[in-house]
Amino acid sequence: MSSEATKKKITEAGTAIVHARGFRATGIQEVLDRAGVPKGSFYFYFKNKDAFGLALVEHFSEFWLGRMDEFLLDEGYSPLVRLARFFGFFHAMFEDMGYRQGCPIGNMAQEMADISEEFKDKVGAVMREAQGKMAQCLREAQEAGEVSSGLDVDAAAEFLLNAWEGAILRMKAEGGPGPRNNFEHMVFGTILRA
Amino acid sequence: MSSEATKKKITEAGTAIVHARGFRATGIQEVLDRAGVPKGSFYFYFKNKDAFGLALVEHFSEFWLGRMDEFLLDEGYSPLVRLARFFGFFHAMFEDMGYRQGCPIGNMAQEMADISEEFKDKVGAVMREAQGKMAQCLREAQEAGEVSSGLDVDAAAEFLLNAWEGAILRMKAEGGPGPRNNFEHMVFGTILRA
Repeated sequence: MSSEATKKKITEAGTAIVHARGFRATGIQEVLDRAGVPKGSFYFYFKNKDAFGLALVEHFSEFWLGRMDEFLLDEGYSPLVRLARFFGFFHAMFEDMGYRQGCPIGNMAQEMADISEEFKDKVGAVMREAQGKMAQCLREAQEAGEVSSGLDVDAAAEFLLNAWEGAILRMKAEGGPGPRNNFEHMVFGTILRA
Repeated sequence: MSSEATKKKITEAGTAIVHARGFRATGIQEVLDRAGVPKGSFYFYFKNKDAFGLALVEHFSEFWLGRMDEFLLDEGYSPLVRLARFFGFFHAMFEDMGYRQGCPIGNMAQEMADISEEFKDKVGAVMREAQGKMAQCLREAQEAGEVSSGLDVDAAAEFLLNAWEGAILRMKAEGGPGPRNNFEHMVFGTILRA
């Protein structure tokens, strides 16, 4: 097995376990057991557990930001519909997961931002990048006349991203789709309504 | 020392440590060391660590819901100003904490909802109670003409509570007041504007 394939196996096993249980509660040994690779391999690819955690944040963010580009740059739809389809994609995913687990980036922020500047900087940067992509989509929606010309799109993008993280967290507490439905209702039915 | 005083000491030591570090990463021994009480005492008051965690949720929620009543029922101010003063109280508290730690109820939801039905039910119930208090305040603001008569106040209350949890989480990731300022700007300057 090539070294890249081994690293990928460890990372994929790690994302599954850490997303379900949290970073600090995950042991390196169980990640390796799941990945089916020997312990020595881990320290060949990752300096320590924190370096592994930061690689997982990178892995989660590539998926998240990748889906943003996929949906928010899709010229087959108007900008506001692109945004709705983006949220819809993740909402279907949360439904598949039984409204559990939550957002892996939000989870890492909650769990690690206070105890590691490196994690804080990394998750902060990912969130700012996501926010920028949303702002650009809202700007295009405003130019297309889909949202009010008076809306401060940069402020709205920051607010939407944070409100969404809150709705995802609330889904865990409710164990159901209520917070997601409320988010879509308030965002597309009230806040962004032209 | 009376038994109630001992229990209070354990609970207060627990709230401080768990709020800073999370529930699962907190050991019973360090709580007892901080409280200055012997180990046997813990199991006299709490069946196990989960029972202690649920008591902490109760303790956190009493503080939170108590401040809600204090601010949201204060007839010295109009309903919308009461709501702004409520958020302002907690925002000053987060500033004092260096924008760290976050909402202890939100943290418990993130950390425990997936792995314990009891925690999920408890934090879910607390959040629904908080949401109800906000909805009542928004209803009074609507009757006073402070928010649009077209606003669905129950949906708005749910949305605000979740968006606030998200803003508090984002403050941890940013290490600054930006998300709080954005929340106030969007909520009072746009969403609730009459």
